[in-house]
Amino acid sequence: MKKIRAAIVGYGNIGHFTLEALQVAPDFEIAGVVRRHGDENKPAELEPYKVVKSIKELQDVDVAILATPTRSVEEYAKECLALGINTVDSFDIHTQIVDLRRSLNAVAKEHNAVSIISAGWDPGSDSIVRTLMQSLAPKGISYTNFGPGMSMGHTVAVKAIKGVKAALSMTIPLGTGIHRRMVYVEIEEGHTLAEVSAAIKADPYFASDETHVMQVDSVDELKDMGHGVNLTRKGVSGKTQNQLFEFNMHINNPALTAQVLVNVARASMKQQPGCYTMIEIPVIDMLPGDREELIRHLV
Amino acid sequence: MKKIRAAIVGYGNIGHFTLEALQVAPDFEIAGVVRRHGDENKPAELEPYKVVKSIKELQDVDVAILATPTRSVEEYAKECLALGINTVDSFDIHTQIVDLRRSLNAVAKEHNAVSIISAGWDPGSDSIVRTLMQSLAPKGISYTNFGPGMSMGHTVAVKAIKGVKAALSMTIPLGTGIHRRMVYVEIEEGHTLAEVSAAIKADPYFASDETHVMQVDSVDELKDMGHGVNLTRKGVSGKTQNQLFEFNMHINNPALTAQVLVNVARASMKQQPGCYTMIEIPVIDMLPGDREELIRHLV
Repeated sequence: MKKIRAAIVGYGNIGHFTLEALQVAPDFEIAGVVRRHGDENKPAELEPYKVVKSIKELQDVDVAILATPTRSVEEYAKECLALGINTVDSFDIHTQIVDLRRSLNAVAKEHNAVSIISAGWDPGSDSIVRTLMQSLAPKGISYTNFGPGMSMGHTVAVKAIKGVKAALSMTIPLGTGIHRRMVYVEIEEGHTLAEVSAAIKADPYFASDETHVMQVDSVDELKDMGHGVNLTRKGVSGKTQNQLFEFNMHINNPALTAQVLVNVARASMKQQPGCYTMIEIPVIDMLPGDREELIRHLV
Repeated sequence: MKKIRAAIVGYGNIGHFTLEALQVAPDFEIAGVVRRHGDENKPAELEPYKVVKSIKELQDVDVAILATPTRSVEEYAKECLALGINTVDSFDIHTQIVDLRRSLNAVAKEHNAVSIISAGWDPGSDSIVRTLMQSLAPKGISYTNFGPGMSMGHTVAVKAIKGVKAALSMTIPLGTGIHRRMVYVEIEEGHTLAEVSAAIKADPYFASDETHVMQVDSVDELKDMGHGVNLTRKGVSGKTQNQLFEFNMHINNPALTAQVLVNVARASMKQQPGCYTMIEIPVIDMLPGDREELIRHLV
């Protein structure tokens, strides 16, 4: 059985967990890692692998797993697709997903390749659950409740505020899609908690949520990579009211994102050329193994 | 926009709820209902529709929704597929799904039609959740906990026991896939609870589960169509342990089955000829509406 040759593009947190997920996947082979600095200061765990500056330096890559910042996804994806290499990413700007899909769809089709975008846990696996719940009760209300866990976007917003040396913004779910923001900050000398707190609460990221700002000595000591989600839908199947659905998870955030990326990298080998979101691919394609065996055990 | 013309084959409980689900679906038209007795003693709600004895009497049917007993599914499906009509069913004998898929796949391909099988809630929508959870944590243990709700199979098994006039077997989830059986029986004159209870507990359907048998005056007064499920998985994403996933629902059983049947009837219009289980079709295909709009709202 020929293994799928995957390249990891970008080697931060997600890239590192992607390496681990590929190492334990039975059907993958690691073609190499692409990093800005190539094999300069190569981390020990990358010793067995080719580490390069450009995907063009790697041989026979079937699929590139883009573990880059979201804003670089489109550029890297186009480069890979133009070489006929499939791409997967966890692009997470919800409002720009349709545009990215259109743009990569054209390039993918032109070069006979497949791209699967926004494949993390939200957007990603949560999107599949939301779509399924919507189908099971077409009328009704869904809520996505995040946390408890660190919000990258909110943390970055706090770090940009004057007087903040280090920050952590935790998302706490209050139900019905309402969230509390617990913000932990280290404050630079010459600034006060009152001043920093007021600036945070006025920021558009926080203005409409209940926000508490706390000063701490070390933000780093509070950080953990756990996160969670609670998705609910209450609605109507046909003409029958009060159908109740709920999905919960408590997970290591980058580990789950990496696992999803590996799953869709596998699925990319089974799709027709073009660009897809996760709700457009059959869930069975994300698993390795014989199709009938999977049906026997999972259906 | 041309509507999808669906026929309902079989008009028991599921057939009735399928009618309701079709009536509120924006993209369907009801081609008619197929019943053993045709329009003899036609129920009031079927007044506006053509009710016939054979699918061949209906015009321009795109898809037949098989609301027949599970054991009749293969025969009816083959008849419809041979006419080039797509079929969907909620065939629920887990051990025979792979065989049914093979058999209908050949007929469907020969006649350029699509069949989607085992499309209820379990097998069905639960299968999608199980497959998704398995992909998110490839190593680990999943449990499917059913109930509280009536088990059709167990109820039928009790009814077959000597001395039982009427029966209801409720499934109560105890976690980790273990279930308690609460059995309510009306007993025929000349028989005792002790005797009936011993026979039930010796039956293969009950022998390995905690089973309680209770005598009641009217089984009918205890019946409700609510059911539930709790699916859990605890496992490993990549090399990261203790990833926790859970799916819960509390639903009207036939109403949900009917909604799923309508969803896959819609999805059948978008697949290549052949036979599929629900884990093999993209979840987006189960929803009506513009693809990009769905992606915008659900991904």
